[in-house]
Amino acid sequence: MKFDLEKEDFVEWYNTIIEVADLIDKRYPIKGAHVWKPYGWKLIRNLDRIIREVWESYGHQEVNFPTLIPFHIFQKEAEHIKGFESQVFWVTRAGDNELEEPYILRPTSETAMYTIFSLWIRSHKDLPLKTFQIVNVFRYETKQTRSFIRMREFHFYEAHTCHATYEDAERQIKEDFEMWDKIAKKLAIPYILIMRPDWDKFPGAVYTVGADTIMPTGRTLQIATMHQYAQNFSKAYEIKYLKEDSTHDYVHQTTFGISERVIGAIVGIHGDNKGLILPPEIAPIQIVIVPIPSEGVIEYSLKIKNILEENKFRVHLDEREDVTPGYKFNDWEMRGVPLRIEVGRKEMDNKAVTLVPRDSRKKISVPIEHMVSTVERELSDIEKRLFIRAEEKMKGMIKHVNSIEELKNHNGIGEIYWCNSYSCAEVIETKSEKKILGYPLKVRKDEGKCIVCEKPTDIIVYVAKTY
Amino acid sequence: MKFDLEKEDFVEWYNTIIEVADLIDKRYPIKGAHVWKPYGWKLIRNLDRIIREVWESYGHQEVNFPTLIPFHIFQKEAEHIKGFESQVFWVTRAGDNELEEPYILRPTSETAMYTIFSLWIRSHKDLPLKTFQIVNVFRYETKQTRSFIRMREFHFYEAHTCHATYEDAERQIKEDFEMWDKIAKKLAIPYILIMRPDWDKFPGAVYTVGADTIMPTGRTLQIATMHQYAQNFSKAYEIKYLKEDSTHDYVHQTTFGISERVIGAIVGIHGDNKGLILPPEIAPIQIVIVPIPSEGVIEYSLKIKNILEENKFRVHLDEREDVTPGYKFNDWEMRGVPLRIEVGRKEMDNKAVTLVPRDSRKKISVPIEHMVSTVERELSDIEKRLFIRAEEKMKGMIKHVNSIEELKNHNGIGEIYWCNSYSCAEVIETKSEKKILGYPLKVRKDEGKCIVCEKPTDIIVYVAKTY
Repeated sequence: MKFDLEKEDFVEWYNTIIEVADLIDKRYPIKGAHVWKPYGWKLIRNLDRIIREVWESYGHQEVNFPTLIPFHIFQKEAEHIKGFESQVFWVTRAGDNELEEPYILRPTSETAMYTIFSLWIRSHKDLPLKTFQIVNVFRYETKQTRSFIRMREFHFYEAHTCHATYEDAERQIKEDFEMWDKIAKKLAIPYILIMRPDWDKFPGAVYTVGADTIMPTGRTLQIATMHQYAQNFSKAYEIKYLKEDSTHDYVHQTTFGISERVIGAIVGIHGDNKGLILPPEIAPIQIVIVPIPSEGVIEYSLKIKNILEENKFRVHLDEREDVTPGYKFNDWEMRGVPLRIEVGRKEMDNKAVTLVPRDSRKKISVPIEHMVSTVERELSDIEKRLFIRAEEKMKGMIKHVNSIEELKNHNGIGEIYWCNSYSCAEVIETKSEKKILGYPLKVRKDEGKCIVCEKPTDIIVYVAKTY
Repeated sequence: MKFDLEKEDFVEWYNTIIEVADLIDKRYPIKGAHVWKPYGWKLIRNLDRIIREVWESYGHQEVNFPTLIPFHIFQKEAEHIKGFESQVFWVTRAGDNELEEPYILRPTSETAMYTIFSLWIRSHKDLPLKTFQIVNVFRYETKQTRSFIRMREFHFYEAHTCHATYEDAERQIKEDFEMWDKIAKKLAIPYILIMRPDWDKFPGAVYTVGADTIMPTGRTLQIATMHQYAQNFSKAYEIKYLKEDSTHDYVHQTTFGISERVIGAIVGIHGDNKGLILPPEIAPIQIVIVPIPSEGVIEYSLKIKNILEENKFRVHLDEREDVTPGYKFNDWEMRGVPLRIEVGRKEMDNKAVTLVPRDSRKKISVPIEHMVSTVERELSDIEKRLFIRAEEKMKGMIKHVNSIEELKNHNGIGEIYWCNSYSCAEVIETKSEKKILGYPLKVRKDEGKCIVCEKPTDIIVYVAKTY
């Protein structure tokens, strides 16, 4: 299928490509719940693998908790329920019976997990406890739903840890940054770590750090979050441990969440007028072989396919006979396959293949004996190029601004000085029609003046329209 | 941890071992919903892999549909809703709002999937459509819940196919038998394929074949089912296709379901007085290395571990210093690790290792250069021995009986002649206090007399107490 929707019209481009490329089907009759098609589900499964490998390499252990949470458990932590109660789905009946106590569908799993953590943790020897799960969660979004970005049922990665001390929980958050950086690099997604303002932290957290990226619309997209809970939840859920000095204390907790929003970022940030561009680590098909009809070309293609599969690449040979090579080129470019291999008479005569990276689309001729190493290098180069291109674009959309007017008109993240007062924050958000994302973790520490009240301040915050 | 509960007392043994071996935690405050601990979740993930590999190798493609199903979709197929309505969980509220239309939590996914299949299938070129998904499903069980066996939320493998003709759907059911046999062999689980009687088929099916195994209690456990739907659902869900002769027809459908009951079967059938015995294909840890303290033994153990990991075995080196080797032996035997490797002074001196299979517990000394091939053979032998032992046991529990009294007293499956009338079926089930499982697919075709009315018949059915 030919795809030639200009990415200029981003919203239409995005909504079209995710269906045309067979990631999902949006026609499921519940708003904000979609069907993963085989190609899209392979993408998610690769994301599962990437995140699982990174988390496990840091000693996190995978668990799996039920979807249903009894209400009395859910409502123990006051801030948390306040934050989520307007968003939960309620199971009130089973068969013909009203349930004595309603269940909620997990919007996130703190309350389910911590009930059991209080049974698992007895002594300092049980700490740190580092767990994660990969599950679907449910949030009754009242705002407009968007595929991957604002869903009512979505794929969620949640790491939960318990520590003896606040300091150890702080170390965990630093480790989260490290783990997230590894994950984001594999997806070629640039991001900024931003400490959320108090009013925007996770319900129940002491503080929240978000990893934000910028979509082509100039709006930021929060794609990961790390939360320091300290003892807020452990006190509500009675997660205590015996210290070495024989006294008891509540554990300190953190969480690190990632959602299918990452897929939205990959689609939006890397794609172009020809369709998706998938980073090789997550691409369901890393290399597609398109034979140019000629005698013996299928045998030659199969040989190439075997060599590549033996070297653990994810390869597809497009043997369709009812479409032209040109149609196939467009089709696989649209689906974002990072590398195409063309083989025809010329390649067979030269004992070679022609490589075409999805991003540059520059043809590279390689003798077959160098194919594996060249493919390896090209895939790695594609990842790097995607990251550099995306990072440059993102950096180009972050700008220091000195007036509310300038802030309002800037498409992307506006960097401003702010006096840290709620009253000025309100003026900033109302007049710019944007949101204060928070305090970027990496920022120069100059002196300036609050963009509203002009009081001297060294506090810099990022402001943008958000998803 | 030492585990020495006699398996004679099966129910207590079963309920204890699944928690002591860290498969699950049953203390979650919803009956029939349990928490998968890391070790148990690795087991399930290996089962995912085994089933996924087999299904994909036959051309099934993995998809993923939402958990929530709008009621108007769920109620389209009359038999289906009749069969499930007393078992569904209802989502009636979201946030503070009553939903205009309630959702149900999928008890199985026919109704969600077929709504979309009607959009995916247009022409005979789209057929056969072979899909599957691995998801949690929800059933409000009113009978006593049992871990893995009768749960309200459980892990479910469901393959759904659409075909142009009834014959092609029949071929699919045959293929299901083949796929199931591959899966069951990897789990060393013997089974019998039984065509269910009409009153016990899946709601909406033309016929249902169950794969039953026998637990140590003598009760049968249905661990997989294959259903022929013909056009029952496609007519309700309007799944039509354009035939080659330009007319339209409804597709013919089949499903093939497997659930976490398989884990219950593995636990119950293979385990012994010392705990679990896990077949090597599904075991989270295939080989545990236990060093017998001596100078240099850790280095030696690490070397062995590396060799085994390079050869793709799942290996754990137990380096704990606060427990004895004997404690470790018991601990890993309890957790069902199929092969133990002991290394100490003697092994180091001989450049050898000592292998101890979990089932036979006979020590085998192997020079290190033959370790990999011996381990490979031993793991394969363990699988075979487990299967043979289980199959012999199962066969020993199937017995031809000639009277209701004998049927009632037999612990296991009673094979009987039956005239195929409902009235005699009722007598059989009531008087024997057992269930007619149905018609075994492989059975000799002799003549006999109905166990109740004594009419001559060549119909043989299996009867047993069931889970």
